[in-house]
Amino acid sequence: MYDPLLAHIRKFVSLSTEEETAFTGILRHKNVRKKEFLLKEQQVCTANYFVLKGCFRMYFIQDNGVEQIIQFAIENWWITDYQSLDWQQPSRFNIQAIEASEIAILDHHVTAGICDRIPRLDRYFRLIAQRAFAASQQRLLFLYTFSGEELYHHFNEAFPAFIQRVPQYMVASFLGLTPEFVSKIKSRPVSPRAKTFPPSR
Amino acid sequence: MYDPLLAHIRKFVSLSTEEETAFTGILRHKNVRKKEFLLKEQQVCTANYFVLKGCFRMYFIQDNGVEQIIQFAIENWWITDYQSLDWQQPSRFNIQAIEASEIAILDHHVTAGICDRIPRLDRYFRLIAQRAFAASQQRLLFLYTFSGEELYHHFNEAFPAFIQRVPQYMVASFLGLTPEFVSKIKSRPVSPRAKTFPPSR
Repeated sequence: MYDPLLAHIRKFVSLSTEEETAFTGILRHKNVRKKEFLLKEQQVCTANYFVLKGCFRMYFIQDNGVEQIIQFAIENWWITDYQSLDWQQPSRFNIQAIEASEIAILDHHVTAGICDRIPRLDRYFRLIAQRAFAASQQRLLFLYTFSGEELYHHFNEAFPAFIQRVPQYMVASFLGLTPEFVSKIKSRPVSPRAKTFPPSR
Repeated sequence: MYDPLLAHIRKFVSLSTEEETAFTGILRHKNVRKKEFLLKEQQVCTANYFVLKGCFRMYFIQDNGVEQIIQFAIENWWITDYQSLDWQQPSRFNIQAIEASEIAILDHHVTAGICDRIPRLDRYFRLIAQRAFAASQQRLLFLYTFSGEELYHHFNEAFPAFIQRVPQYMVASFLGLTPEFVSKIKSRPVSPRAKTFPPSR
């Protein structure tokens, strides 16, 4: 059931079979319906979520009612609002399934305990958090460096799996573009820079 | 010499006196001149830096030559490019001292070893990375939610220490505003929303 998660952990740290069993023993498994929420604005976030299968978006609603997506998560990604989780304060974000999905839930109230018992998990989650932070720094770089058109084509090249699965208006929201603009540029030839720029990971 | 760092660690985890001594024993101390660089674009980042005294900025240079600041660090903040550090690949960023400063350097090549020896350090750096990631998610929320004027006043309220120490054009760059715009709004009365919005931490 948790094989994709154990495979992901093994890329970063080595756990004994007993430790793997202890860790998966405190997880909760959940099938999530399309459009179901893991977190809603004003709720306190209670867990970190690992995507075993499916796809999620994290977004907030702007004053003018427009949904602004700040993160996607597909298979092998963790998704949560650390601000809400670590301080146990109400979240400003929503986390919602884009497809029918399957997740492993690591509840906040058991996280410190299991990391006390298996300190290698602190290493694993440290490296995960560092990668997430690095990706958000890279994202700022792209947002400020690329034109809207380059941004779309770069995203397309770097994350082809997303483009196949995520509705076009959500990709537009993530990139800060209008759906109309994305429709327009999709038909144009790709500019050289967007083609050759290396993906962030 | 490293007292502010040890005080910072104690807010997150408990180390024995022996462990504290072992940790500070592998750090390097450095006095940094104003405008000196810890990292330059195209270099591979070799360390994580803790600010004992002083102030730094992390920025990149846009195609049009404009410097875009993506992060500041003052006392008790860690600053590095995790993308470059964790993958040992050339950085897109510069890290430069804004004032004469004093730092503790945790070299990349000794980090895994000291965390093996003192697993609580993995916990400490996990929580630090989660906070940094959370702050960058909040920043995106502010960038998309606030007008330029609200953004400036919010930053002013949330981080008064920065505003005192950092040149106005750098604050403008961090917020994605022009220096002229910041000069103009500084003289206007503060709008109610920017005044009451809670700071991110």
